[in-house]
Amino acid sequence: MLDDVLMKYPDPDVDYGKLISPFQAEIGHLQREILDLNIPVMIIIEGWDASGISDICNKLIRYLDPRSYRLYPVGRPKESEAEMPFLWRFALAAPEEGKFAIFDRAWYSRMIVENKENLKDVFRIKVEDIKAFERHFCDDGGVLIKIFLHISHKEQKKRFKEADSDPCRSFYLKNVDWNPKKEYPEYFSVIDEILFRTNTPNSPWEVIPAENLDYAVYRVYDTVINRLKAAVSDKLKGVETICHECPILSSGYCLPEPHAPRVLDRKEYKTKKKELGKRLSELQVELYRNKIPLVILYEGWDASGKGGAITRFTRYLNPRGYRIEPIGPPDVKEKKMGYLWRFYKRLPRPGRIVIFDRTWYGRVLVERVEGLCSDYDWKRAYTEITEFEHFIDEWGGVIVKFWIHISNEEQLDRFRAREADPDKVWKITPEDWRNREKWDQYEEAVCDMISLTHTPCCPWTIVSGNDKYSARIQTFEAVIAAVEKKLNLFK
Amino acid sequence: MLDDVLMKYPDPDVDYGKLISPFQAEIGHLQREILDLNIPVMIIIEGWDASGISDICNKLIRYLDPRSYRLYPVGRPKESEAEMPFLWRFALAAPEEGKFAIFDRAWYSRMIVENKENLKDVFRIKVEDIKAFERHFCDDGGVLIKIFLHISHKEQKKRFKEADSDPCRSFYLKNVDWNPKKEYPEYFSVIDEILFRTNTPNSPWEVIPAENLDYAVYRVYDTVINRLKAAVSDKLKGVETICHECPILSSGYCLPEPHAPRVLDRKEYKTKKKELGKRLSELQVELYRNKIPLVILYEGWDASGKGGAITRFTRYLNPRGYRIEPIGPPDVKEKKMGYLWRFYKRLPRPGRIVIFDRTWYGRVLVERVEGLCSDYDWKRAYTEITEFEHFIDEWGGVIVKFWIHISNEEQLDRFRAREADPDKVWKITPEDWRNREKWDQYEEAVCDMISLTHTPCCPWTIVSGNDKYSARIQTFEAVIAAVEKKLNLFK
Repeated sequence: MLDDVLMKYPDPDVDYGKLISPFQAEIGHLQREILDLNIPVMIIIEGWDASGISDICNKLIRYLDPRSYRLYPVGRPKESEAEMPFLWRFALAAPEEGKFAIFDRAWYSRMIVENKENLKDVFRIKVEDIKAFERHFCDDGGVLIKIFLHISHKEQKKRFKEADSDPCRSFYLKNVDWNPKKEYPEYFSVIDEILFRTNTPNSPWEVIPAENLDYAVYRVYDTVINRLKAAVSDKLKGVETICHECPILSSGYCLPEPHAPRVLDRKEYKTKKKELGKRLSELQVELYRNKIPLVILYEGWDASGKGGAITRFTRYLNPRGYRIEPIGPPDVKEKKMGYLWRFYKRLPRPGRIVIFDRTWYGRVLVERVEGLCSDYDWKRAYTEITEFEHFIDEWGGVIVKFWIHISNEEQLDRFRAREADPDKVWKITPEDWRNREKWDQYEEAVCDMISLTHTPCCPWTIVSGNDKYSARIQTFEAVIAAVEKKLNLFK
Repeated sequence: MLDDVLMKYPDPDVDYGKLISPFQAEIGHLQREILDLNIPVMIIIEGWDASGISDICNKLIRYLDPRSYRLYPVGRPKESEAEMPFLWRFALAAPEEGKFAIFDRAWYSRMIVENKENLKDVFRIKVEDIKAFERHFCDDGGVLIKIFLHISHKEQKKRFKEADSDPCRSFYLKNVDWNPKKEYPEYFSVIDEILFRTNTPNSPWEVIPAENLDYAVYRVYDTVINRLKAAVSDKLKGVETICHECPILSSGYCLPEPHAPRVLDRKEYKTKKKELGKRLSELQVELYRNKIPLVILYEGWDASGKGGAITRFTRYLNPRGYRIEPIGPPDVKEKKMGYLWRFYKRLPRPGRIVIFDRTWYGRVLVERVEGLCSDYDWKRAYTEITEFEHFIDEWGGVIVKFWIHISNEEQLDRFRAREADPDKVWKITPEDWRNREKWDQYEEAVCDMISLTHTPCCPWTIVSGNDKYSARIQTFEAVIAAVEKKLNLFK
């Protein structure tokens, strides 16, 4: 895609500086439409060193209302970013509905710079992650505009030479991560292949010759304005830009009977719990030492005992290293973001434990059953979720997923017991009773969820929950087994 | 305060473990009341190493709904925290209204550990900052509960010895920042003095003997429950816990005439701007090199040209190093926090520039005039704001504050011009006209603001704004002067 043959160069007879001026009013107008229509927009400006990325970013934001954009200069990750999954910091920087996130360099530059040593091996895997990440954003209604500023090796060398006499320019250019004088030819083919592989229908690349600044600015504005106009027009017409196939839902999976393998009496339970708890305390230290993040997901029927199981579990942990994240309806800010955003935000640092009480599976459970998102949204979520979990797995994390299963009759007994207890009556709401009426719909959703997201790296554990003591012990054992399995890889 | 004479020790005849059990329901109940009444609560647990801080935190959170608290284990700051003002990470961790923030160690431990070398010189200054920070929270309706877990040197040595045979315990204890075996006597008097000096009426210390864990847990719960009960009762009765005097507002300060010292023609302006712009580009590099953060505040009448001045200014900056922060009404989350929270969050990193288009002075301008906060709120804000700016100054930041002043007639002309221009008509709203009617009230507020917050470290620059060209040049010059002054200190 960097080949000269494919490029349209400036017409020497045109004054591009003049062509730019009407863009000022146009981009301001479009920006207000984008805001009204709640469309999130990401613009990434990549390019060769000294291709003028910063200049162009500064000109691009000049006529945008500062309330509606955020510019991210992407350099070396901070310590707190470097320890997280590669795409994490970009996922957090995604724009709200109606807003712009503009990246002065983005995940492409970072993928290259951070994997210089074995780039050819790495990038084919990473490129798949990047494509998944971009697809999540676009399928959710986002507009992703990707621009690459192209200059020749000769021009690049000339610019570096000129910068030597300008202390400001040379300061910024000296801060780059590799030696561009030597490495241009080496990277040319790699970048070309990356651009080619990530040139998807929903987020195509625009390669812009940047040897003439006015022309480059003109082309950037032209690209951005055309993409925004198309997005506004599609949204007004109600065009859904479906580009991703949904999996077929006919798994035939059925939940097992929720009776405990063995009902435990109080004494057996206490003894067992203490013994496993001691092991958990030890494993927490091992996770910390080996910098392994642990994510535990608790899903299950209402009143299946998620909260109780979590409280028993955390008793054995040091509070400096774990956090419970109860997941309710998204807040105002979260509603304006992709549904995975709030989970990216809550991931543990390496060596820490995060316990989710309800999880991202809400997308295919409550949001599906209650119609809180479109069919298209929840149907493609199975793939999105497995990809998201794959990011965590690749990063070195352990994921343990519980479905705590109780029978319909057991739930009824527990609801009634809660209503009769003055200290627990606040736990039961009319909503719980309404959900209960939809048991069959939920059961179908649960079966689909388990069969479609039970992956080798992140399998489900179905906990037989009718006996609370036994259920808690099952969760302890499953976490211990998963962590020990991971730690064995380190030996 | 650590003296034995002042301490109440456990009664050997009492089973404190048993006394704890009714607390479970009580704390759950109080927590729901706190949520209903929108009271933010901070609990900090400090104490000697091996005094059982983590154990106690884990027991304290056990019966709290995880939706309503967040536990902060406070250790060495991350790179991204260490470069910011000392109290910054704690300010960001403050709880929302109705929520709990629990600190497993807090700013006291960090002040001591981070200033070990010259503690005696440092802590008297830092203690004043801490008191200001705590006062801001309490005056705003927050409940701050400060607990210190006290054990004797003998007990501490015993615990360290015992931990040697327990790999989990010894792991956590080995992670501490100083050698507790030797340093207990040395720190005793320092900690004693710090506790004494920060034992304020609104946030008193509770020193709890922690040699017997059950007793310590009992006392912690008892303290927390009593403080929460008192807060709930005060709030229901409408008691305002005013503990801070408000400054007297009778400065007699008057705004000068907003005519430019010299009206510039377009050519003079362009020449001057280019020359100053070049200097700005250079200074941005110097700020970056010297890791100095720069905060520029633009306040001024509606249509005084803040936005235009900012756009001209940023043209000369590299977008990797600056950010414009337009300040409108707080969002849902921000409304639940103290009014300074969103500004802490937006401070620049060292070496970066943040430009605020409207600022924290909204508290004493729009919030005062429109009655969006109580008299008590805005009257004490002058002190709070100067203290906040003092934090930034102490940290090494440069603050430049502009009031862009135009005459009443000039504003009218500009409003009319905007209404007549189809590309600018969206900029003018009925609210602007309503504000204009309150010109006199705003003028009074502006005069009070300038006279009460014009401090040696953060003085105001009054920009004569009737001539736009001249106004912009004045802002360029003021920023350059302030930055050069700061840089001279480094030579």
